[in-house]
Amino acid sequence: MKIKAGIVGGSGYTGAELLRLLIQHTQVEIIAITSRTESGVALSKFFPFLRKHTNLVFSDPDTVDMTQCDLVFFATPHGVAMQHAEKLLSQGVRIIDLSADFRLKNPSEFEHYYGIQHKNPSLLSKSVYGLPEINRASIANAQLIGLPGCYPTAVQLGFLPLMDPLQKSSTFLIDYTTLIADCKSGVSGAGRSARVPGLFTEVSEDFKAYGLPEHRHLPEMVQGLRTMSGQDLRLTFVPHLVPMIRGIHATLYARLTSYGKSIDLQNLYQDRFKEEPFIDILPAGEMPNTHSVRGTNLVRIAVHPQKENDLVIILVVQDNLVKGASGQAVQVMNIMFNLPEETGLKNLPTFP
Amino acid sequence: MKIKAGIVGGSGYTGAELLRLLIQHTQVEIIAITSRTESGVALSKFFPFLRKHTNLVFSDPDTVDMTQCDLVFFATPHGVAMQHAEKLLSQGVRIIDLSADFRLKNPSEFEHYYGIQHKNPSLLSKSVYGLPEINRASIANAQLIGLPGCYPTAVQLGFLPLMDPLQKSSTFLIDYTTLIADCKSGVSGAGRSARVPGLFTEVSEDFKAYGLPEHRHLPEMVQGLRTMSGQDLRLTFVPHLVPMIRGIHATLYARLTSYGKSIDLQNLYQDRFKEEPFIDILPAGEMPNTHSVRGTNLVRIAVHPQKENDLVIILVVQDNLVKGASGQAVQVMNIMFNLPEETGLKNLPTFP
Amino acid sequence: MKIKAGIVGGSGYTGAELLRLLIQHTQVEIIAITSRTESGVALSKFFPFLRKHTNLVFSDPDTVDMTQCDLVFFATPHGVAMQHAEKLLSQGVRIIDLSADFRLKNPSEFEHYYGIQHKNPSLLSKSVYGLPEINRASIANAQLIGLPGCYPTAVQLGFLPLMDPLQKSSTFLIDYTTLIADCKSGVSGAGRSARVPGLFTEVSEDFKAYGLPEHRHLPEMVQGLRTMSGQDLRLTFVPHLVPMIRGIHATLYARLTSYGKSIDLQNLYQDRFKEEPFIDILPAGEMPNTHSVRGTNLVRIAVHPQKENDLVIILVVQDNLVKGASGQAVQVMNIMFNLPEETGLKNLPTFP
Amino acid sequence: MKIKAGIVGGSGYTGAELLRLLIQHTQVEIIAITSRTESGVALSKFFPFLRKHTNLVFSDPDTVDMTQCDLVFFATPHGVAMQHAEKLLSQGVRIIDLSADFRLKNPSEFEHYYGIQHKNPSLLSKSVYGLPEINRASIANAQLIGLPGCYPTAVQLGFLPLMDPLQKSSTFLIDYTTLIADCKSGVSGAGRSARVPGLFTEVSEDFKAYGLPEHRHLPEMVQGLRTMSGQDLRLTFVPHLVPMIRGIHATLYARLTSYGKSIDLQNLYQDRFKEEPFIDILPAGEMPNTHSVRGTNLVRIAVHPQKENDLVIILVVQDNLVKGASGQAVQVMNIMFNLPEETGLKNLPTFP
Repeated sequence: MKIKAGIVGGSGYTGAELLRLLIQHTQVEIIAITSRTESGVALSKFFPFLRKHTNLVFSDPDTVDMTQCDLVFFATPHGVAMQHAEKLLSQGVRIIDLSADFRLKNPSEFEHYYGIQHKNPSLLSKSVYGLPEINRASIANAQLIGLPGCYPTAVQLGFLPLMDPLQKSSTFLIDYTTLIADCKSGVSGAGRSARVPGLFTEVSEDFKAYGLPEHRHLPEMVQGLRTMSGQDLRLTFVPHLVPMIRGIHATLYARLTSYGKSIDLQNLYQDRFKEEPFIDILPAGEMPNTHSVRGTNLVRIAVHPQKENDLVIILVVQDNLVKGASGQAVQVMNIMFNLPEETGLKNLPTFP
Repeated sequence: MKIKAGIVGGSGYTGAELLRLLIQHTQVEIIAITSRTESGVALSKFFPFLRKHTNLVFSDPDTVDMTQCDLVFFATPHGVAMQHAEKLLSQGVRIIDLSADFRLKNPSEFEHYYGIQHKNPSLLSKSVYGLPEINRASIANAQLIGLPGCYPTAVQLGFLPLMDPLQKSSTFLIDYTTLIADCKSGVSGAGRSARVPGLFTEVSEDFKAYGLPEHRHLPEMVQGLRTMSGQDLRLTFVPHLVPMIRGIHATLYARLTSYGKSIDLQNLYQDRFKEEPFIDILPAGEMPNTHSVRGTNLVRIAVHPQKENDLVIILVVQDNLVKGASGQAVQVMNIMFNLPEETGLKNLPTFP
Repeated sequence: MKIKAGIVGGSGYTGAELLRLLIQHTQVEIIAITSRTESGVALSKFFPFLRKHTNLVFSDPDTVDMTQCDLVFFATPHGVAMQHAEKLLSQGVRIIDLSADFRLKNPSEFEHYYGIQHKNPSLLSKSVYGLPEINRASIANAQLIGLPGCYPTAVQLGFLPLMDPLQKSSTFLIDYTTLIADCKSGVSGAGRSARVPGLFTEVSEDFKAYGLPEHRHLPEMVQGLRTMSGQDLRLTFVPHLVPMIRGIHATLYARLTSYGKSIDLQNLYQDRFKEEPFIDILPAGEMPNTHSVRGTNLVRIAVHPQKENDLVIILVVQDNLVKGASGQAVQVMNIMFNLPEETGLKNLPTFP
Repeated sequence: MKIKAGIVGGSGYTGAELLRLLIQHTQVEIIAITSRTESGVALSKFFPFLRKHTNLVFSDPDTVDMTQCDLVFFATPHGVAMQHAEKLLSQGVRIIDLSADFRLKNPSEFEHYYGIQHKNPSLLSKSVYGLPEINRASIANAQLIGLPGCYPTAVQLGFLPLMDPLQKSSTFLIDYTTLIADCKSGVSGAGRSARVPGLFTEVSEDFKAYGLPEHRHLPEMVQGLRTMSGQDLRLTFVPHLVPMIRGIHATLYARLTSYGKSIDLQNLYQDRFKEEPFIDILPAGEMPNTHSVRGTNLVRIAVHPQKENDLVIILVVQDNLVKGASGQAVQVMNIMFNLPEETGLKNLPTFP
């Protein structure tokens, strides 16, 4: 029997990407998709790329009954899911929230970075952070998933094998206080709202940093890395805007300890991820490109130790809308409903 | 003594381009530039590209006195210039309007295509259409200029030598009833307002036609071509959006008469434009590219007769913000103030 | 039992796209793929986008035995397939040639446009032109397919419903002597060879026409349109280069006869293509964009009669590497092997 | 009297940019420009963007007499200038070499990184490193200039104010052993040779790192920073390729000492560069974008201390072909010939 899925807020880019993936997913039936502004409009009218692919129509979020769903995805702006989660959960509906509402465990941190008060902080402790490579077992039984942000997915996966599981300082591989994540994202990461800085004329043939001194994704990264390592740590995060539609490239820098310099880091990464269906560790010396994962749920990682500089550089690429958002949502759904984890996520990227 | 110039509405792309050209123009002093939303803001703050190049500050349009200017440019949305022109003209201030307010001679045509009633139709007969290659003498003495639109500049210049000056049907070169202008424009032609269809994510890696069945620039083109030829005529105009910032490419098609097929069209074009500082006729067989005129006031034209098909194809390229807007405004200003026509317009394009 | 397929010349863009589609095709097994320069190299090494998706290795074309295949695709430069076809056909291997070797029926026309003598003109009469919307029945039984070029696919499909099947001049819908195809293509249409004019620095932020006076695809279009209509006709074809990777947009112009003006052209198009799985006729008044078919085998068409100008404008979009090449090859293969025609071709485009 | 200038190797991108700048420079006359492959060809034929701007013709490097020049620019591949410099210098001709031949003082380092033996190592000690912000006085009297590479210009200028001039460890501002330069460049930095990795289809909608473990520009940066600081130091340099034509963005990371944390770094940068015509320090908190310096000789720098992380982030933008190559060459020429330093370099960038 197919999973009955609902989508709240389907008119943005993560919603569109979720539609692309779920329409092609053999084990899912989309029961309803809502949009306050587009209620009653056929999806194939609103999204011309869906013509010939679906007969779905946007529903009014105030009248549709989502409790008939097995699972509801929230692809809404921050602040919406936290208002509706409790009611759905109480009816036995499971939730995957693609917004930031259930990512941070500390409600005051949420309020500081997102500028709104959390409406339901009691749910924060019940929600599971939806990063399968770390939380697979918890995800399987979760009722409520806070799905990671795009940058945090890339950065956490890139640093993960360096985070010492034994938590003894003599076996630390790196200095936890000098981590740097120099990240670059395509423009779709900023969403589909009408903004002058997002215009083609402003973005094309340009490159810049943004989000200093503290981007919203910083506390989520720090929370995740602290959980992995069991250590307090300090991370410097500088995001940049690339004139391309999709793709994130994270260039990570960590200072190696003497012990870290003695380890074969290439092996370490290959071992840590050898069972992961969506992680590809490149051969030593190679460098990944974002286009090679475009439209797919893959993350490609390359490890470049520069031992003469006491440093390791990790290069990570992903599609910010797939593994960074909607693809990860589908992967998490597959785990939650006990399906093979790659179901609906096996498509190849286009090249060129 | 320098020309004292004012700019009304300087926060859009034609305003920015006018600033670039006027700041570098040795014979102009910008007295004031207004922006209702940015009043009091330094231009170098609002437009980071102007840092180190100007100390100008946006003025409030309601308080600044533009009557001290010799010349005022309107780089405003359609409908603004027609409200302010009369007062300025009465004080002896000359006007170059970059909007559509004074382009069409027929006020009901204006109302049909722009959706607003013309506030000062009596000025339409006094205004001069600012296309130097056709109207140079009238421009020199004009008080009020309606500057051509970007597409109309390219299309009219491309067809110009084919328009029979003698107006006898036996010497018509082409069939006036089957003209086609298949035009392609960069995204800056749509201005700087915040719109989803203008986002990088919507425009990049995409191509489409728009504006059918009747784009606003169609009546302006028809008016101009009728004036040139003295003939009624029918033109089909299809604009397309190119994923680039600047540039217009017009591909023009005209059916040749028997007489037209007997003429050396390459010579015809070279002769017609041989004194023109901003028109470059390519050697026979070559094809122009938009990047070769980017940032300059040049128009490059290639003439490709396909006599076996009774047809001539004309290829025209220009920068939509320079010869298609602000550069043409400066050229017109130079003519109005008796300066060498190329003053301030000699810069080379960058390559690549 | 799966189709045993071979690919000759798999290192270019049409080869890569064929790989993407065939690897995901449930009814195909790729037996061998050759590349003279990359023999022995793993595909996942040569094409990083294929990592984790295939274990195939390039074979040497001189040693691999392609006669074990049920079907061989040639994704080679023009001039190769015609040297190898006869031997394979004699062994019962069927062939789909993506190059131009078997498109034109007239060998002297081939020689004029491609600059090489045809090595096997006797096969030209046996080959079937692989455009399913016209030749489906012949394709089903064909041993040798000459697959259409990218531009010819878009242009022929766009004009098809206007080509009078009854061949009486009183019921002609259009004037066959004044057809115009103003076409725009992404850069991948030019293939993967190292060329200065294909560099990012030369193509980005630029637009231009090319290929005048007579592009190689012109005779193929004329041959096809003459076959459809049974009429001699004249077509003017102007290709342009768009700064995007994939996509073709054809803007077609035909002059309507009095009879043509009396017809409901929207209905005509919808009727003609109503059974076609890969043709989507847009609602009246809409305009298609290339991105909405990117990576898919769909062609979207819009019909815009301009009856006051005695004209019809047809807008056609397709992905030049899918319906314009490798996707069409898979569609043709499905027909040849009696599979459902959409097998392996149902993927949705990404948006954005 | 104008400077008589010659250009050796004018068919690449730095040559084209030099032409753009010198043609507009009022104090320079280009006597000759050579190209082995294009000898006899008009520049306006080879570079369509130069039509209507110059009548120059490429000369044969073997027959032209460059000794009539006051100054010769080498815009040649690495390895050419070192073969011709001595002869020109002996005739009193001054030289600005845009290639790498005279950048590194250590010939064995040159051989290691460039893979060719240095033909004239004795000239290395006589050559002056052409970075005006550091070497202005030496440049004024230099006969032979080794012009900095594009990345080294951005990285050295960005770090410069942090390099302690007093060379006492107690007043070091930063830790010299943990410097990181995460740099991003547009595609024109790779030159104009025909290469598959430079094709639009390979670069557009993609982002990646390249050049690890040791890019050619690394030893030049280290040499420069060591000279500035008088200290041994270690720098990690990771270049990335951005899908844009022009522009470099350097994101620099340095760990602050206790002393460094006590200093007002914004003031430090403003003071250091306050007399520099081509350096623009942004107000605290702002971030520069590459487009704002496109086509100009400006470098914009922003200083972002993150004192809670004991770090300073410096953001630097420049046009790789102007301040990173040909514009810097003109600036150096102006200094050498005692002209106002901004002569010919005052043009504004286009926006958008």
